[in-house]
Amino acid sequence: MLWTAPSSTRSLHAHTRPLHRVLPLPAHSRLSLPGRFRPTIAKTYATSTSSSTTATKPGFRWRTFARYTIYLVGSSVVGLGLLTGAIFLHDACTYRERHIEGVPVSPRALHPERGGPKNLPVLSRLLSDLEDDENRELVEKPHLVIVGGGWGAVGVIDKLSPGDYHVTIVSPETYTTFTPLLPSAAVGTVSVRSLVEPLRKIAARLKGHLINARAIDLVMSERLLEVETIVPGGKSERMYIPYDKLIIAVGSTSSTHGVPGLEHCFQLKTISDAQAIRKRIIDNFEAASLPTTTPEERRKLLSFVVCGGGPTGVETAAEIYDLCQEDLINYFPKICRKEVSIHLIQSREHILNTYSEAISRYAEDKFMHDNIDLITSARVQAIGPDKVMYSKRGPDGKMETHEIPTNFVLWSTGIAMNPFTRRVADLLPNQVHKKAIEVDAHLRVKGAPLGEVYAIGDASTIETSVVPYLLELVDEADKNKDGKIDFEEWEIMVSRIKKRIPMAEEQLQKVRELFDLYDSDSDNSLNLNELAVLLQEIGNKITALPATAQVASQQGKYLGKKLSKIAERRKVLEANGLRPEEADEAVSGPFRYSHLGSLAYIGNAAVFDLGRFSFMGGLAAMYAWRSVYWSEQVSMRTRALLMIDWIVRGVWGRDLSRL
Amino acid sequence: MLWTAPSSTRSLHAHTRPLHRVLPLPAHSRLSLPGRFRPTIAKTYATSTSSSTTATKPGFRWRTFARYTIYLVGSSVVGLGLLTGAIFLHDACTYRERHIEGVPVSPRALHPERGGPKNLPVLSRLLSDLEDDENRELVEKPHLVIVGGGWGAVGVIDKLSPGDYHVTIVSPETYTTFTPLLPSAAVGTVSVRSLVEPLRKIAARLKGHLINARAIDLVMSERLLEVETIVPGGKSERMYIPYDKLIIAVGSTSSTHGVPGLEHCFQLKTISDAQAIRKRIIDNFEAASLPTTTPEERRKLLSFVVCGGGPTGVETAAEIYDLCQEDLINYFPKICRKEVSIHLIQSREHILNTYSEAISRYAEDKFMHDNIDLITSARVQAIGPDKVMYSKRGPDGKMETHEIPTNFVLWSTGIAMNPFTRRVADLLPNQVHKKAIEVDAHLRVKGAPLGEVYAIGDASTIETSVVPYLLELVDEADKNKDGKIDFEEWEIMVSRIKKRIPMAEEQLQKVRELFDLYDSDSDNSLNLNELAVLLQEIGNKITALPATAQVASQQGKYLGKKLSKIAERRKVLEANGLRPEEADEAVSGPFRYSHLGSLAYIGNAAVFDLGRFSFMGGLAAMYAWRSVYWSEQVSMRTRALLMIDWIVRGVWGRDLSRL
Repeated sequence: MLWTAPSSTRSLHAHTRPLHRVLPLPAHSRLSLPGRFRPTIAKTYATSTSSSTTATKPGFRWRTFARYTIYLVGSSVVGLGLLTGAIFLHDACTYRERHIEGVPVSPRALHPERGGPKNLPVLSRLLSDLEDDENRELVEKPHLVIVGGGWGAVGVIDKLSPGDYHVTIVSPETYTTFTPLLPSAAVGTVSVRSLVEPLRKIAARLKGHLINARAIDLVMSERLLEVETIVPGGKSERMYIPYDKLIIAVGSTSSTHGVPGLEHCFQLKTISDAQAIRKRIIDNFEAASLPTTTPEERRKLLSFVVCGGGPTGVETAAEIYDLCQEDLINYFPKICRKEVSIHLIQSREHILNTYSEAISRYAEDKFMHDNIDLITSARVQAIGPDKVMYSKRGPDGKMETHEIPTNFVLWSTGIAMNPFTRRVADLLPNQVHKKAIEVDAHLRVKGAPLGEVYAIGDASTIETSVVPYLLELVDEADKNKDGKIDFEEWEIMVSRIKKRIPMAEEQLQKVRELFDLYDSDSDNSLNLNELAVLLQEIGNKITALPATAQVASQQGKYLGKKLSKIAERRKVLEANGLRPEEADEAVSGPFRYSHLGSLAYIGNAAVFDLGRFSFMGGLAAMYAWRSVYWSEQVSMRTRALLMIDWIVRGVWGRDLSRL
Repeated sequence: MLWTAPSSTRSLHAHTRPLHRVLPLPAHSRLSLPGRFRPTIAKTYATSTSSSTTATKPGFRWRTFARYTIYLVGSSVVGLGLLTGAIFLHDACTYRERHIEGVPVSPRALHPERGGPKNLPVLSRLLSDLEDDENRELVEKPHLVIVGGGWGAVGVIDKLSPGDYHVTIVSPETYTTFTPLLPSAAVGTVSVRSLVEPLRKIAARLKGHLINARAIDLVMSERLLEVETIVPGGKSERMYIPYDKLIIAVGSTSSTHGVPGLEHCFQLKTISDAQAIRKRIIDNFEAASLPTTTPEERRKLLSFVVCGGGPTGVETAAEIYDLCQEDLINYFPKICRKEVSIHLIQSREHILNTYSEAISRYAEDKFMHDNIDLITSARVQAIGPDKVMYSKRGPDGKMETHEIPTNFVLWSTGIAMNPFTRRVADLLPNQVHKKAIEVDAHLRVKGAPLGEVYAIGDASTIETSVVPYLLELVDEADKNKDGKIDFEEWEIMVSRIKKRIPMAEEQLQKVRELFDLYDSDSDNSLNLNELAVLLQEIGNKITALPATAQVASQQGKYLGKKLSKIAERRKVLEANGLRPEEADEAVSGPFRYSHLGSLAYIGNAAVFDLGRFSFMGGLAAMYAWRSVYWSEQVSMRTRALLMIDWIVRGVWGRDLSRL
């Protein structure tokens, strides 16, 4: 009623007066009216408000301004109040009762049969497979098993259409982690909870299932994945999960580089790693603040060593610096802050060496300014329980061995295969890559039955060698069947190579030059030998994709889209006489990586390498860095939580409790 | 400029038009004016806005309403925008540089001398004691050592005035915990982080210190507290902390009641307990959702047993029910929800037996409705790794033993002394209480040097026996020194007893009746024997204060206030010839507990026992329950975080990740 227009003076007063009390309305009708109306209105209002004549007094503008401000604040408060009311109302609706009556469960899910080479239980039906119509339909669809719950897996799930596959995720963790912010979580800038989203929630859209287990082995002939469950109390069990299509997205472990003593190091790949680091930092500060700790011991406790000058190492060093500088300094004895030393050991000449030179230099300057000890061109020799040993060429050119006493070492250098990836590679004779499973440009594991086993993310690497396809390529391109490739045929061949190995594109841009260069006998054609040399050298020049979240995510999304297309067009493909293993090529081109740029946080400053140009700077860049990660979040929930974390840090500082 | 008042029609148009574009102003001047002005104004506006004539058209009220709504929303958005801007601005200001130059540190803090009976390092100076003027002044003040970091300790810190004492907190945890919400945290309704506040932050107001250690022993003659530090890597060290005043606020452990197998149980006293419970619940659900789990095993995994029908037990059972009912049901196979069983074993006849009868009945009805299995009047016999055994009188009156297969048992029945409290009690021959350290009405540990050692919270119990003071009381009251107490003298005596043991007040209300009742020889006076019987029986009737957060907090605040008063009036007291041990009585009366009521959450409903009246109900009561706890928070930070947690739960449900 308050909001309806009045029809008479009396009703105006009757209606607006309560409003004046509820929220301080500025009563523009009096103040913003043209001058000639003012006297009349002032008279009308004279009985109710004495201030209506202030318009002619000095200070009038300020009062108006104040009124508008009050109005704005008042409206905001009312708006916020309404919002709060809405939230309460919604909240109140979330507490509802639901009863579960008889739930149909397949007997095969309650008592799985045994089978496979090891005679283990085979999970051909899951508990929820018959519980409603949707699930009953899905169980007849091809069974897609995704091993892993990281960027790759979430990418696949993101792009799959509901109803196409019976999806099962196999993961030792029940949640997916936003890994790029782990360094922030390790020092409490953000909460670990804001980085995770339960896989069951992510898979809910597809009515997907989660098996909380670790993949152990693969029986490709019977399409069975062997997993080991993680059961409370330590008693584990092994079983087979049958699949029609399998996606390996298990990530990687850290490369040891043959350095002894890595058991004394922290890694930063999981939430538990971040929690352990956080606990250690606070523990070290607590121990350092005791008078019974000797000054040497104190320096050791407050010496933080990071091995690896890539983004993770750099960001962790920067975050530790921030924590000491902005938060711990306020609550621990000042001497503790003074004794803090942060060391970053990098094997290359510069930190962030995959970024542009300007960025490396900027980051190094920033670290130098922050008194972070940069040790470049150095190799870690060994890590002890309370020290790090590294070698570095001295000013006289001789290798010298140095030692840093420390109680905190983070190891973040390169990747290696985890046991499951290793096992899969061992099963296939043509898998020779040392760090990952080799896949073709369609992300299919090389040597596995076509269209059945895929690998993505850190666990995989796309083949860069063209030589194995030499004869096949020549066969296709050699139109006149003279066993030689003339320039016209070479042009055909180049387009075929590009299709097979899109990553070779950059090396194949100068078609004529390449032809002339490798035509060593200048007969205006390339024979098999000449071609072999050419393809070999091109293959060597291709850089493998980096083991980053960006690559994993793009591969996952590519694969999710492709699998949905295959499901969609299955009938058509079958009618066209295409065998299932040819479906990949039929519905989609090979995977193409599009680099969106790299970024890194370097302590209240950030750097962006966007390929063509770089961007670096202080707070503004830091906010931009946050925005990028914020927009990349997997759910609105984590987005809201992250935003809250950042605000909470601004208002109350980082959380110092050892949790 | 937009906010200044226009001086002519032209300038009004010039100024207000951009405003219309920026945010949809409802232009009240046109619409809310009394009818007789409308035509004139409409004419004035006719050139600029065609809608000004709509006032006379149908649908006018709705439009006005819509305009006001838009205005309100618009203002809210602008207000929020400004708020966001302010937050950003503030945030940007928090990243500042500070450099630590030479920090003065006492040599005695860097190399503490050894001393005391065990020749351990004595922490007579701490690292920050000389770092600035404030600290240099404080170190000359009496040293107050608070052992523990819970409700009692925080209460003391809360009420102490800065500058009066050199305060040191000794706690194995670096944070204080809002214990009443631990059941909520155990199922993820709120985050554990929202319940903790670092002790260093809490003590910062007093420039207090934290020693992250566990109290081990006490040397009262030399005023030394022996502590053991918790050092990363497991290497611990013992040391002495000298004190002038010591406050024991270490809480309690759970009482075993002699039940074997408690190592298989969870407790719910700390954040780690809550985290462990949460992890186990999710683990059990994950294991239960595997087809390889047999139906019996599944029922066992999904059977949750709570031993103890007090508030903690009841709230945990209710929260587990909520978690299953509102969240897990959505993401786990339905059969899992169906197989969930929650059991509550209570030794008394009713749950919440310290609350009013109506409340017990309400809570029991609610649990019955929720299918929570209430097992009352039952005694737990033993707990195995996968079952709970209890005995209960059968319908035929015979004791029967029952067994519940389970993988989750919460033990929350009664309290017992922890090792440090035990040790302190053993040091003093007059400490005979079994569950806690006995203190006098001034909270001073009985038998310890007066005014030096206090105990509060669960670790302490206020003496209820008046008999030991018999002779002293008679001496004071027996004015005519005839060895007997007549009624007049008895009235004096009653007032003295009330002063010494305020908790006896209730028993001493009927002065005349008591006198007549115990005057067994009816000689109109009480002799020593008669008095002894009287006081003994009164002492027996006094109920000890419950081991609750409310009592601990009130005791802490009382003590904090008293200690500040003692510090403030030290000079005056000394001038009056009062010895330090008499200071307590001189500045303050004895501790008086004022019960503010009890409350409990029982699953989307809550109960309040406010002494004179009870209040129970559904959602409204639940929101009231939340409000009470919200207002009790130790900091604005946790208040904000809790509010956010509740909103997040409403919007996205409980966090299901196993963190």
